[in-house]
Amino acid sequence: MKFVRYFQDDTVNIGIFNKAETAVLNLKDIFAQKDCSTMQKVIENLTDEDIQRLQQSLQDESLFKTATKDIKILAPIERPIHDILCVGVNYSAHLEETKDRVANFKKDTNDAVYFGKRAIKILGTNEAVQGQFDVDSALDYEVELAVIIGKTGKNIKIEDVEDYIFGYSVFNDFSSRRLQKKHMQWFRGKSLDTYSAMGPVILHKSALPFPLKVDVKCTVNGELRQNSNTSLFLHDVPYIVSELSQGMTLEAGDIIATGTPSGVGMGYRPGKWLRKGDCVVCEIPQIGKLINTIE
Amino acid sequence: MKFVRYFQDDTVNIGIFNKAETAVLNLKDIFAQKDCSTMQKVIENLTDEDIQRLQQSLQDESLFKTATKDIKILAPIERPIHDILCVGVNYSAHLEETKDRVANFKKDTNDAVYFGKRAIKILGTNEAVQGQFDVDSALDYEVELAVIIGKTGKNIKIEDVEDYIFGYSVFNDFSSRRLQKKHMQWFRGKSLDTYSAMGPVILHKSALPFPLKVDVKCTVNGELRQNSNTSLFLHDVPYIVSELSQGMTLEAGDIIATGTPSGVGMGYRPGKWLRKGDCVVCEIPQIGKLINTIE
Repeated sequence: MKFVRYFQDDTVNIGIFNKAETAVLNLKDIFAQKDCSTMQKVIENLTDEDIQRLQQSLQDESLFKTATKDIKILAPIERPIHDILCVGVNYSAHLEETKDRVANFKKDTNDAVYFGKRAIKILGTNEAVQGQFDVDSALDYEVELAVIIGKTGKNIKIEDVEDYIFGYSVFNDFSSRRLQKKHMQWFRGKSLDTYSAMGPVILHKSALPFPLKVDVKCTVNGELRQNSNTSLFLHDVPYIVSELSQGMTLEAGDIIATGTPSGVGMGYRPGKWLRKGDCVVCEIPQIGKLINTIE
Repeated sequence: MKFVRYFQDDTVNIGIFNKAETAVLNLKDIFAQKDCSTMQKVIENLTDEDIQRLQQSLQDESLFKTATKDIKILAPIERPIHDILCVGVNYSAHLEETKDRVANFKKDTNDAVYFGKRAIKILGTNEAVQGQFDVDSALDYEVELAVIIGKTGKNIKIEDVEDYIFGYSVFNDFSSRRLQKKHMQWFRGKSLDTYSAMGPVILHKSALPFPLKVDVKCTVNGELRQNSNTSLFLHDVPYIVSELSQGMTLEAGDIIATGTPSGVGMGYRPGKWLRKGDCVVCEIPQIGKLINTIE
Protein backbone atom coordinates (compact mmCIF):
# COMPACT_ATOMS: atom_id res chain seq x y z
CA MET A 1 0.00 0.00 0.00
CA LYS A 2 1.46 3.29 -1.15
CA PHE A 3 0.58 6.63 0.39
CA VAL A 4 0.79 9.51 -2.04
CA ARG A 5 0.57 13.25 -1.50
CA TYR A 6 -0.74 14.96 -4.61
CA PHE A 7 -2.08 18.11 -6.13
CA GLN A 8 -5.42 18.14 -7.87
CA ASP A 9 -8.11 20.77 -8.38
CA ASP A 10 -6.08 23.41 -6.54
CA THR A 11 -5.79 21.36 -3.39
CA VAL A 12 -3.18 19.16 -1.79
CA ASN A 13 -4.54 15.73 -0.90
CA ILE A 14 -3.32 12.53 0.68
CA GLY A 15 -4.36 9.25 -0.87
CA ILE A 16 -3.38 5.69 -1.63
CA PHE A 17 -2.81 4.12 -5.02
CA ASN A 18 -4.74 1.15 -6.32
CA LYS A 19 -2.68 -1.94 -7.10
CA ALA A 20 -2.06 -0.97 -10.73
CA GLU A 21 -1.20 2.61 -9.62
CA THR A 22 -3.59 3.91 -12.26
CA ALA A 23 -5.89 5.63 -9.77
CA VAL A 24 -5.95 7.20 -6.33
CA LEU A 25 -8.32 6.99 -3.39
CA ASN A 26 -8.51 10.29 -1.47
CA LEU A 27 -8.29 9.59 2.26
CA LYS A 28 -10.87 12.30 2.89
CA ASP A 29 -13.44 10.10 1.17
CA ILE A 30 -12.84 7.32 3.68
CA PHE A 31 -12.06 9.17 6.89
CA ALA A 32 -14.45 12.11 6.89
CA GLN A 33 -14.09 12.54 10.65
CA LYS A 34 -10.28 12.54 10.74
CA ASP A 35 -7.84 15.24 9.80
CA CYS A 36 -6.08 13.79 6.75
CA SER A 37 -5.04 17.15 5.33
CA THR A 38 -1.31 16.48 5.58
CA MET A 39 0.85 13.35 5.59
CA GLN A 40 1.89 14.31 9.12
CA LYS A 41 -1.75 14.23 10.25
CA VAL A 42 -2.31 10.93 8.45
CA ILE A 43 0.68 9.38 10.20
CA GLU A 44 -0.44 10.75 13.57
CA ASN A 45 -4.16 10.03 13.24
CA LEU A 46 -4.62 6.71 11.46
CA THR A 47 -5.05 3.76 13.80
CA ASP A 48 -4.19 0.14 13.04
CA GLU A 49 -7.88 -0.38 12.29
CA ASP A 50 -7.83 2.50 9.82
CA ILE A 51 -4.85 0.96 8.04
CA GLN A 52 -6.70 -2.37 7.84
CA ARG A 53 -9.72 -0.62 6.39
CA LEU A 54 -7.51 0.99 3.74
CA GLN A 55 -6.00 -2.35 2.90
CA GLN A 56 -9.45 -3.82 2.43
CA SER A 57 -10.37 -0.87 0.20
CA LEU A 58 -7.71 -2.06 -2.25
CA GLN A 59 -10.21 -4.75 -3.22
CA ASP A 60 -12.76 -2.19 -4.36
CA GLU A 61 -11.61 -0.36 -7.47
CA SER A 62 -14.67 1.89 -7.43
CA LEU A 63 -13.23 3.75 -4.44
CA PHE A 64 -10.27 4.95 -6.53
CA LYS A 65 -11.94 7.87 -8.23
CA THR A 66 -9.03 9.93 -9.48
CA ALA A 67 -6.88 8.84 -12.41
CA THR A 68 -3.15 8.99 -11.72
CA LYS A 69 -2.65 10.87 -14.98
CA ASP A 70 -4.74 13.75 -13.58
CA ILE A 71 -2.66 14.36 -10.47
CA LYS A 72 0.70 15.91 -9.76
CA ILE A 73 2.63 13.81 -7.25
CA LEU A 74 4.25 15.89 -4.48
CA ALA A 75 6.87 15.08 -1.85
CA PRO A 76 5.12 12.80 0.65
CA ILE A 77 6.36 15.07 3.45
CA GLU A 78 7.25 18.59 2.38
CA ARG A 79 8.24 20.22 5.64
CA PRO A 80 9.64 17.80 8.19
CA ILE A 81 8.85 18.33 11.87
CA HIS A 82 12.57 18.24 12.68
CA ASP A 83 15.77 18.09 10.66
CA ILE A 84 16.17 14.77 8.88
CA LEU A 85 18.01 12.15 10.95
CA CYS A 86 20.81 10.76 8.81
CA VAL A 87 23.10 7.77 9.10
CA GLY A 88 26.57 8.26 7.65
CA VAL A 89 28.74 5.63 5.88
CA ASN A 90 26.38 2.73 6.49
CA TYR A 91 27.62 0.45 3.68
CA SER A 92 31.21 -0.83 3.83
CA ALA A 93 31.88 -0.19 0.13
CA HIS A 94 30.85 3.46 0.63
CA LEU A 95 33.03 3.70 3.73
CA GLU A 96 35.93 2.52 1.57
CA GLU A 97 35.35 5.10 -1.17
CA THR A 98 34.90 7.87 1.39
CA LYS A 99 38.25 7.35 3.11
CA ASP A 100 40.53 10.35 2.81
CA ARG A 101 37.82 12.19 0.88
CA VAL A 102 36.25 13.95 3.85
CA ALA A 103 38.66 15.96 5.98
CA ASN A 104 39.33 14.72 9.47
CA PHE A 105 37.05 11.78 8.96
CA LYS A 106 38.78 8.62 9.99
CA LYS A 107 36.37 5.96 11.10
CA ASP A 108 38.14 3.41 13.22
CA THR A 109 35.25 1.96 15.17
CA ASN A 110 32.10 0.07 14.27
CA ASP A 111 29.86 2.71 15.80
CA ALA A 112 27.17 4.26 13.66
CA VAL A 113 27.59 7.85 12.46
CA TYR A 114 24.58 10.13 12.85
CA PHE A 115 24.09 13.68 11.63
CA GLY A 116 21.27 16.12 11.02
CA LYS A 117 20.21 17.47 7.63
CA ARG A 118 18.10 20.60 7.49
CA ALA A 119 15.33 20.89 4.92
CA ILE A 120 12.84 23.72 4.99
CA LYS A 121 11.19 22.07 1.98
CA ILE A 122 11.74 18.53 0.71
CA LEU A 123 11.44 18.09 -3.05
CA GLY A 124 9.21 15.43 -4.54
CA THR A 125 9.76 13.44 -7.70
CA ASN A 126 9.98 15.51 -10.88
CA GLU A 127 10.86 18.62 -8.88
CA ALA A 128 14.07 20.40 -9.80
CA VAL A 129 17.07 20.85 -7.54
CA GLN A 130 18.24 24.46 -7.53
CA GLY A 131 21.99 23.98 -7.77
CA GLN A 132 23.73 26.35 -5.33
CA PHE A 133 26.85 26.28 -7.49
CA ASP A 134 28.14 29.65 -6.36
CA VAL A 135 28.31 28.27 -2.82
CA ASP A 136 29.73 24.85 -3.75
CA SER A 137 30.09 23.38 -7.24
CA ALA A 138 30.85 19.88 -5.90
CA LEU A 139 27.22 18.73 -5.84
CA ASP A 140 26.77 15.01 -5.22
CA TYR A 141 23.88 12.51 -5.09
CA GLU A 142 23.23 9.81 -2.48
CA VAL A 143 20.36 7.36 -2.87
CA GLU A 144 19.04 6.12 0.47
CA LEU A 145 16.19 4.20 2.00
CA ALA A 146 14.17 6.57 4.19
CA VAL A 147 12.33 5.26 7.23
CA ILE A 148 9.27 7.23 8.32
CA ILE A 149 8.51 6.97 12.02
CA GLY A 150 4.85 6.20 12.72
CA LYS A 151 4.58 6.39 16.48
CA THR A 152 6.35 8.58 19.00
CA GLY A 153 8.70 6.58 21.18
CA LYS A 154 11.86 6.58 23.27
CA ASN A 155 14.27 3.82 24.34
CA ILE A 156 12.74 1.52 21.74
CA LYS A 157 13.93 -2.08 21.94
CA ILE A 158 15.38 -3.59 18.77
CA GLU A 159 12.61 -6.19 18.67
CA ASP A 160 9.91 -3.51 18.90
CA VAL A 161 11.22 -1.20 16.17
CA GLU A 162 8.82 -2.24 13.40
CA ASP A 163 5.92 -1.19 15.59
CA TYR A 164 7.25 2.40 15.54
CA ILE A 165 7.64 2.59 11.76
CA PHE A 166 4.97 3.96 9.44
CA GLY A 167 6.65 3.15 6.16
CA TYR A 168 9.49 3.70 3.74
CA SER A 169 10.46 6.04 0.95
CA VAL A 170 13.33 6.75 -1.43
CA PHE A 171 15.57 9.63 -0.39
CA ASN A 172 18.24 11.56 -2.26
CA ASP A 173 20.65 13.14 0.20
CA PHE A 174 22.17 15.75 -2.12
CA SER A 175 25.49 16.82 -0.66
CA SER A 176 27.88 19.76 -1.09
CA ARG A 177 31.21 18.02 -0.79
CA ARG A 178 33.46 21.06 -0.38
CA LEU A 179 31.29 22.45 2.41
CA GLN A 180 31.11 19.04 4.05
CA LYS A 181 34.91 19.05 4.18
CA LYS A 182 35.38 22.76 4.94
CA HIS A 183 33.23 22.86 8.07
CA MET A 184 34.35 19.47 9.44
CA GLN A 185 30.93 18.65 10.79
CA TRP A 186 28.74 17.69 7.83
CA PHE A 187 25.64 19.71 8.68
CA ARG A 188 26.08 22.68 6.35
CA GLY A 189 27.32 20.54 3.46
CA LYS A 190 24.09 18.56 3.71
CA SER A 191 21.61 21.37 4.24
CA LEU A 192 21.54 23.76 1.30
CA ASP A 193 18.10 24.68 -0.04
CA THR A 194 16.44 21.99 -2.23
CA TYR A 195 19.14 19.42 -1.42
CA SER A 196 16.65 16.93 0.03
CA ALA A 197 14.34 14.93 -2.21
CA MET A 198 11.98 12.14 -1.21
CA GLY A 199 9.36 10.05 -2.92
CA PRO A 200 7.55 9.26 -5.02
CA VAL A 201 5.43 7.76 -2.22
CA ILE A 202 5.58 6.27 1.24
CA LEU A 203 5.26 2.51 1.08
CA HIS A 204 3.44 1.24 4.15
CA LYS A 205 5.55 -1.09 6.26
CA SER A 206 3.04 -3.91 5.84
CA ALA A 207 4.19 -4.29 2.22
CA LEU A 208 7.64 -5.60 3.12
CA PRO A 209 9.06 -8.33 5.36
CA PHE A 210 11.07 -6.90 8.25
CA PRO A 211 13.96 -6.23 8.48
CA LEU A 212 13.74 -5.28 4.85
CA LYS A 213 16.07 -6.31 2.05
CA VAL A 214 15.54 -4.06 -0.90
CA ASP A 215 17.66 -2.97 -3.83
CA VAL A 216 18.86 0.63 -3.77
CA LYS A 217 19.91 2.11 -7.11
CA CYS A 218 20.87 5.43 -8.60
CA THR A 219 21.46 6.50 -12.17
CA VAL A 220 22.76 9.83 -13.46
CA ASN A 221 21.67 10.60 -17.02
CA GLY A 222 20.93 6.91 -17.44
CA GLU A 223 24.34 5.72 -16.23
CA LEU A 224 24.12 3.29 -13.31
CA ARG A 225 26.19 4.76 -10.47
CA GLN A 226 24.88 3.14 -7.30
CA ASN A 227 23.53 -0.39 -7.06
CA SER A 228 23.32 -2.16 -3.73
CA ASN A 229 20.90 -3.77 -1.31
CA THR A 230 19.94 -2.84 2.24
CA SER A 231 21.02 -6.33 3.34
CA LEU A 232 24.54 -4.85 3.12
CA PHE A 233 23.89 -2.21 5.77
CA LEU A 234 26.61 -1.96 8.42
CA HIS A 235 23.78 -1.12 10.85
CA ASP A 236 20.29 -2.28 9.93
CA VAL A 237 17.02 -0.46 10.48
CA PRO A 238 16.14 -2.11 13.81
CA TYR A 239 19.58 -1.20 15.16
CA ILE A 240 19.49 2.40 13.91
CA VAL A 241 15.99 3.22 15.11
CA SER A 242 16.61 1.61 18.47
CA GLU A 243 19.95 3.34 19.02
CA LEU A 244 18.70 6.77 17.93
CA SER A 245 15.79 6.45 20.34
CA GLN A 246 17.98 5.82 23.38
CA GLY A 247 17.60 9.00 25.40
CA MET A 248 16.16 10.86 22.41
CA THR A 249 12.47 10.72 21.60
CA LEU A 250 11.59 9.90 18.00
CA GLU A 251 8.32 11.45 16.93
CA ALA A 252 5.66 10.28 14.50
CA GLY A 253 6.62 11.84 11.17
CA ASP A 254 10.36 11.86 11.80
CA ILE A 255 12.42 10.87 8.77
CA ILE A 256 15.54 8.71 9.05
CA ALA A 257 17.80 8.53 5.99
CA THR A 258 19.67 5.27 6.41
CA GLY A 259 22.87 5.96 4.47
CA THR A 260 24.03 5.57 0.90
CA PRO A 261 25.91 2.72 -0.82
CA SER A 262 29.08 3.22 -2.88
CA GLY A 263 29.11 4.94 -6.25
CA VAL A 264 28.64 8.57 -5.26
CA GLY A 265 30.38 11.23 -7.34
CA MET A 266 32.92 11.82 -4.58
CA GLY A 267 34.19 8.27 -5.01
CA TYR A 268 35.51 8.97 -8.53
CA ARG A 269 38.79 10.64 -9.50
CA PRO A 270 38.14 13.33 -10.50
CA GLY A 271 34.83 13.69 -8.67
CA LYS A 272 31.77 13.28 -10.89
CA TRP A 273 29.81 16.28 -9.68
CA LEU A 274 26.28 17.02 -10.81
CA ARG A 275 25.78 19.86 -13.29
CA LYS A 276 22.88 21.84 -14.64
CA GLY A 277 20.61 19.64 -16.74
CA ASP A 278 21.65 16.35 -15.13
CA CYS A 279 18.88 13.93 -14.27
CA VAL A 280 19.24 11.74 -11.17
CA VAL A 281 16.97 8.76 -10.72
CA CYS A 282 16.97 7.03 -7.34
CA GLU A 283 15.07 3.79 -7.15
CA ILE A 284 13.97 1.18 -4.69
CA PRO A 285 11.84 -1.09 -6.88
CA GLN A 286 9.15 -1.84 -4.30
CA ILE A 287 8.69 1.90 -3.61
CA GLY A 288 9.30 3.58 -6.96
CA LYS A 289 11.53 6.03 -8.76
CA LEU A 290 12.51 9.43 -7.42
CA ILE A 291 13.47 11.59 -10.38
CA ASN A 292 15.14 14.98 -10.02
CA THR A 293 16.86 17.19 -12.53
CA ILE A 294 19.40 19.83 -11.62
CA GLU A 295 18.66 23.45 -12.51
CA MET B 1 13.21 45.40 25.81
CA LYS B 2 12.79 41.82 26.97
CA PHE B 3 10.25 39.43 25.49
CA VAL B 4 9.02 36.83 27.92
CA ARG B 5 6.88 33.76 27.46
CA TYR B 6 4.98 32.95 30.60
CA PHE B 7 2.27 30.91 32.22
CA GLN B 8 -0.54 32.60 34.09
CA ASP B 9 -4.19 31.74 34.71
CA ASP B 10 -3.89 28.46 32.83
CA THR B 11 -2.69 30.10 29.65
CA VAL B 12 0.62 30.66 27.94
CA ASN B 13 1.22 34.31 27.07
CA ILE B 14 3.85 36.42 25.41
CA GLY B 15 4.73 39.74 26.95
CA ILE B 16 7.44 42.26 27.64
CA PHE B 17 8.88 43.27 30.99
CA ASN B 18 8.81 46.80 32.33
CA LYS B 19 12.21 48.34 33.01
CA ALA B 20 12.36 47.17 36.60
CA GLU B 21 11.20 43.68 35.51
CA THR B 22 8.59 43.79 38.23
CA ALA B 23 5.63 43.54 35.86
CA VAL B 24 4.63 42.27 32.44
CA LEU B 25 2.61 43.70 29.59
CA ASN B 26 0.66 41.00 27.73
CA LEU B 27 1.10 41.54 23.98
CA LYS B 28 -2.54 40.55 23.47
CA ASP B 29 -3.54 43.75 25.27
CA ILE B 30 -1.68 45.85 22.70
CA PHE B 31 -2.09 43.89 19.47
CA ALA B 32 -5.66 42.63 19.60
CA GLN B 33 -5.70 42.12 15.83
CA LYS B 34 -2.47 40.13 15.61
CA ASP B 35 -1.76 36.54 16.49
CA CYS B 36 0.62 36.84 19.45
CA SER B 37 -0.19 33.41 20.86
CA THR B 38 3.35 32.04 20.46
CA MET B 39 6.81 33.61 20.34
CA GLN B 40 7.07 32.28 16.78
CA LYS B 41 3.97 34.25 15.80
CA VAL B 42 5.27 37.35 17.57
CA ILE B 43 8.56 37.13 15.70
CA GLU B 44 6.77 36.60 12.39
CA ASN B 45 3.99 39.13 12.84
CA LEU B 46 5.38 42.19 14.62
CA THR B 47 6.46 44.95 12.27
CA ASP B 48 9.09 47.59 12.97
CA GLU B 49 6.25 49.95 13.85
CA ASP B 50 4.87 47.42 16.34
CA ILE B 51 8.29 47.17 17.97
CA GLN B 52 8.46 50.97 18.22
CA ARG B 53 5.03 51.03 19.80
CA LEU B 54 6.17 48.47 22.38
CA GLN B 55 9.24 50.51 23.12
CA GLN B 56 7.07 53.57 23.71
CA SER B 57 4.83 51.51 25.99
CA LEU B 58 7.80 51.10 28.33
CA GLN B 59 7.10 54.70 29.37
CA ASP B 60 3.62 53.85 30.63
CA GLU B 61 3.76 51.64 33.72
CA SER B 62 -0.03 51.32 33.81
CA LEU B 63 0.14 49.00 30.79
CA PHE B 64 2.12 46.43 32.80
CA LYS B 65 -0.75 44.78 34.57
CA THR B 66 0.71 41.49 35.75
CA ALA B 67 3.22 41.27 38.57
CA THR B 68 6.29 39.22 37.74
CA LYS B 69 5.85 37.34 41.02
CA ASP B 70 2.54 35.98 39.73
CA ILE B 71 3.88 34.41 36.55
CA LYS B 72 5.92 31.34 35.73
CA ILE B 73 8.55 32.15 33.11
CA LEU B 74 8.76 29.57 30.30
CA ALA B 75 11.32 28.91 27.56
CA PRO B 76 10.92 31.81 25.12
CA ILE B 77 10.69 29.26 22.29
CA GLU B 78 9.67 25.78 23.37
CA ARG B 79 9.55 23.88 20.08
CA PRO B 80 11.92 25.26 17.47
CA ILE B 81 10.84 25.26 13.82
CA HIS B 82 14.03 23.41 12.88
CA ASP B 83 16.90 21.85 14.78
CA ILE B 84 19.04 24.46 16.50
CA LEU B 85 21.89 25.77 14.35
CA CYS B 86 25.09 25.49 16.36
CA VAL B 87 28.59 26.85 15.96
CA GLY B 88 31.36 24.62 17.31
CA VAL B 89 34.62 25.70 18.96
CA ASN B 90 34.09 29.42 18.40
CA TYR B 91 36.44 30.69 21.13
CA SER B 92 40.15 29.92 20.85
CA ALA B 93 40.53 28.98 24.52
CA HIS B 94 37.76 26.41 24.09
CA LEU B 95 39.39 25.10 20.93
CA GLU B 96 42.53 24.59 22.97
CA GLU B 97 40.81 22.66 25.77
CA THR B 98 38.90 20.54 23.24
CA LYS B 99 41.97 19.26 21.41
CA ASP B 100 42.36 15.50 21.69
CA ARG B 101 39.17 15.30 23.71
CA VAL B 102 36.80 14.67 20.81
CA ALA B 103 37.74 11.71 18.61
CA ASN B 104 38.84 12.46 15.09
CA PHE B 105 38.42 16.16 15.66
CA LYS B 106 41.51 17.97 14.53
CA LYS B 107 40.79 21.51 13.48
CA ASP B 108 43.56 22.80 11.26
CA THR B 109 41.76 25.56 9.39
CA ASN B 110 40.08 28.78 10.38
CA ASP B 111 36.73 27.71 8.97
CA ALA B 112 33.72 27.78 11.21
CA VAL B 113 32.26 24.48 12.43
CA TYR B 114 28.48 24.10 12.18
CA PHE B 115 26.27 21.32 13.45
CA GLY B 116 22.62 20.70 14.20
CA LYS B 117 21.12 20.05 17.63
CA ARG B 118 17.71 18.47 17.87
CA ALA B 119 15.30 19.64 20.56
CA ILE B 120 11.69 18.51 20.61
CA LYS B 121 11.26 20.74 23.66
CA ILE B 122 13.60 23.47 24.87
CA LEU B 123 13.72 23.96 28.63
CA GLY B 124 13.25 27.38 30.17
CA THR B 125 14.87 28.77 33.28
CA ASN B 126 14.09 26.84 36.47
CA GLU B 127 13.16 23.76 34.48
CA ALA B 128 15.00 20.55 35.31
CA VAL B 129 17.25 18.64 32.94
CA GLN B 130 16.37 14.94 32.92
CA GLY B 131 19.83 13.39 33.02
CA GLN B 132 19.97 10.49 30.53
CA PHE B 133 22.76 8.93 32.58
CA ASP B 134 22.09 5.39 31.45
CA VAL B 135 22.82 6.51 27.87
CA ASP B 136 25.85 8.70 28.73
CA SER B 137 27.03 9.71 32.18
CA ALA B 138 29.47 12.33 30.77
CA LEU B 139 26.95 15.19 30.84
CA ASP B 140 28.47 18.61 30.20
CA TYR B 141 27.30 22.23 30.14
CA GLU B 142 28.04 24.91 27.53
CA VAL B 143 26.89 28.49 28.01
CA GLU B 144 26.29 30.28 24.71
CA LEU B 145 24.80 33.42 23.25
CA ALA B 146 21.75 32.46 21.17
CA VAL B 147 20.76 34.57 18.19
CA ILE B 148 17.07 34.49 17.25
CA ILE B 149 16.44 35.15 13.57
CA GLY B 150 13.69 37.72 13.01
CA LYS B 151 13.21 37.73 9.27
CA THR B 152 13.50 34.98 6.70
CA GLY B 153 16.49 35.48 4.41
CA LYS B 154 19.09 33.86 2.22
CA ASN B 155 22.54 34.97 1.01
CA ILE B 156 22.54 37.71 3.64
CA LYS B 157 25.40 40.18 3.37
CA ILE B 158 27.54 40.69 6.47
CA GLU B 159 26.53 44.35 6.64
CA ASP B 160 22.82 43.44 6.54
CA VAL B 161 22.85 40.77 9.24
CA GLU B 162 21.43 42.87 12.09
CA ASP B 163 18.33 43.49 10.01
CA TYR B 164 17.60 39.74 10.05
CA ILE B 165 17.97 39.33 13.81
CA PHE B 166 15.08 39.53 16.26
CA GLY B 167 17.05 39.32 19.46
CA TYR B 168 19.27 37.34 21.78
CA SER B 169 18.97 34.81 24.55
CA VAL B 170 21.15 32.69 26.82
CA PHE B 171 21.53 29.08 25.74
CA ASN B 172 22.86 26.01 27.52
CA ASP B 173 24.03 23.44 24.98
CA PHE B 174 24.05 20.40 27.29
CA SER B 175 26.27 17.77 25.71
CA SER B 176 26.80 14.03 26.09
CA ARG B 177 30.54 13.77 25.65
CA ARG B 178 30.85 10.02 25.18
CA LEU B 179 28.19 9.98 22.48
CA GLN B 180 29.76 13.01 20.82
CA LYS B 181 32.99 11.01 20.55
CA LYS B 182 31.43 7.61 19.81
CA HIS B 183 29.43 8.69 16.76
CA MET B 184 32.12 11.01 15.29
CA GLN B 185 29.54 13.50 14.07
CA TRP B 186 28.28 15.43 17.11
CA PHE B 187 24.56 15.32 16.40
CA ARG B 188 23.47 12.53 18.75
CA GLY B 189 25.76 13.70 21.56
CA LYS B 190 24.01 17.06 21.42
CA SER B 191 20.41 15.97 21.00
CA LEU B 192 19.24 13.93 23.98
CA ASP B 193 15.88 14.90 25.45
CA THR B 194 15.92 18.04 27.67
CA TYR B 195 19.53 18.84 26.73
CA SER B 196 18.66 22.28 25.35
CA ALA B 197 17.80 25.16 27.65
CA MET B 198 17.19 28.79 26.70
CA GLY B 199 16.09 31.90 28.51
CA PRO B 200 15.04 33.51 30.67
CA VAL B 201 13.91 35.92 27.92
CA ILE B 202 14.68 37.15 24.44
CA LEU B 203 16.37 40.54 24.58
CA HIS B 204 15.36 42.58 21.56
CA LYS B 205 18.31 43.49 19.34
CA SER B 206 17.65 47.21 19.85
CA ALA B 207 18.94 46.92 23.41
CA LEU B 208 22.55 46.23 22.38
CA PRO B 209 25.09 47.84 20.07
CA PHE B 210 25.96 45.60 17.11
CA PRO B 211 28.09 43.54 16.79
CA LEU B 212 27.53 42.80 20.42
CA LYS B 213 30.15 42.47 23.12
CA VAL B 214 28.64 40.77 26.11
CA ASP B 215 29.98 38.71 28.97
CA VAL B 216 29.13 35.02 28.91
CA LYS B 217 29.37 33.17 32.20
CA CYS B 218 28.53 29.83 33.69
CA THR B 219 28.61 28.56 37.26
CA VAL B 220 28.04 25.05 38.53
CA ASN B 221 26.85 24.90 42.14
CA GLY B 222 28.13 28.44 42.53
CA GLU B 223 31.64 27.71 41.21
CA LEU B 224 32.60 29.90 38.26
CA ARG B 225 33.49 27.62 35.36
CA GLN B 226 33.10 29.73 32.23
CA ASN B 227 33.76 33.45 32.01
CA SER B 228 34.40 35.09 28.68
CA ASN B 229 33.07 37.72 26.32
CA THR B 230 31.64 37.48 22.83
CA SER B 231 34.32 39.91 21.65
CA LEU B 232 36.59 36.81 21.76
CA PHE B 233 34.56 34.93 19.15
CA LEU B 234 36.65 33.34 16.41
CA HIS B 235 33.72 34.11 14.10
CA ASP B 236 31.39 36.90 15.14
CA VAL B 237 27.62 37.07 14.73
CA PRO B 238 27.62 38.96 11.41
CA TYR B 239 30.03 36.41 9.94
CA ILE B 240 28.13 33.36 11.22
CA VAL B 241 24.66 34.50 10.17
CA SER B 242 25.90 35.59 6.78
CA GLU B 243 27.83 32.38 6.12
CA LEU B 244 25.02 30.09 7.29
CA SER B 245 22.61 31.91 4.98
CA GLN B 246 24.71 31.34 1.85
CA GLY B 247 22.67 28.83 -0.11
CA MET B 248 20.57 27.96 2.95
CA THR B 249 17.52 30.00 3.90
CA LEU B 250 17.34 31.11 7.51
CA GLU B 251 13.77 31.48 8.72
CA ALA B 252 12.20 33.81 11.24
CA GLY B 253 12.33 31.96 14.54
CA ASP B 254 15.49 30.01 13.77
CA ILE B 255 17.88 29.75 16.72
CA ILE B 256 21.65 29.97 16.30
CA ALA B 257 23.78 28.92 19.27
CA THR B 258 27.05 30.74 18.76
CA GLY B 259 29.50 28.47 20.57
CA THR B 260 30.82 28.16 24.10
CA PRO B 261 33.97 29.58 25.71
CA SER B 262 36.47 27.50 27.66
CA GLY B 263 35.73 25.99 31.04
CA VAL B 264 33.42 23.14 30.12
CA GLY B 265 33.58 19.94 32.16
CA MET B 266 35.37 18.14 29.32
CA GLY B 267 38.31 20.51 29.66
CA TYR B 268 39.20 19.20 33.15
CA ARG B 269 41.19 16.08 34.03
CA PRO B 270 39.27 14.11 35.07
CA GLY B 271 36.19 15.51 33.36
CA LYS B 272 33.86 17.44 35.67
CA TRP B 273 30.58 15.90 34.57
CA LEU B 274 27.23 17.10 35.82
CA ARG B 275 25.40 14.92 38.33
CA LYS B 276 21.97 14.72 39.82
CA GLY B 277 21.23 17.74 41.97
CA ASP B 278 23.78 20.03 40.31
CA CYS B 279 22.63 23.54 39.53
CA VAL B 280 23.96 25.24 36.39
CA VAL B 281 23.56 28.99 36.00
CA CYS B 282 24.31 30.50 32.60
CA GLU B 283 24.38 34.25 32.45
CA ILE B 284 24.69 37.08 29.99
CA PRO B 285 24.15 40.10 32.26
CA GLN B 286 22.14 42.16 29.76
CA ILE B 287 19.79 39.21 29.13
CA GLY B 288 19.56 37.44 32.45
CA LYS B 289 20.25 34.16 34.20
CA LEU B 290 19.28 30.77 32.86
CA ILE B 291 19.08 28.38 35.81
CA ASN B 292 18.73 24.63 35.42
CA THR B 293 19.15 21.82 37.89
CA ILE B 294 19.92 18.25 36.91
CA GLU B 295 17.44 15.56 37.88
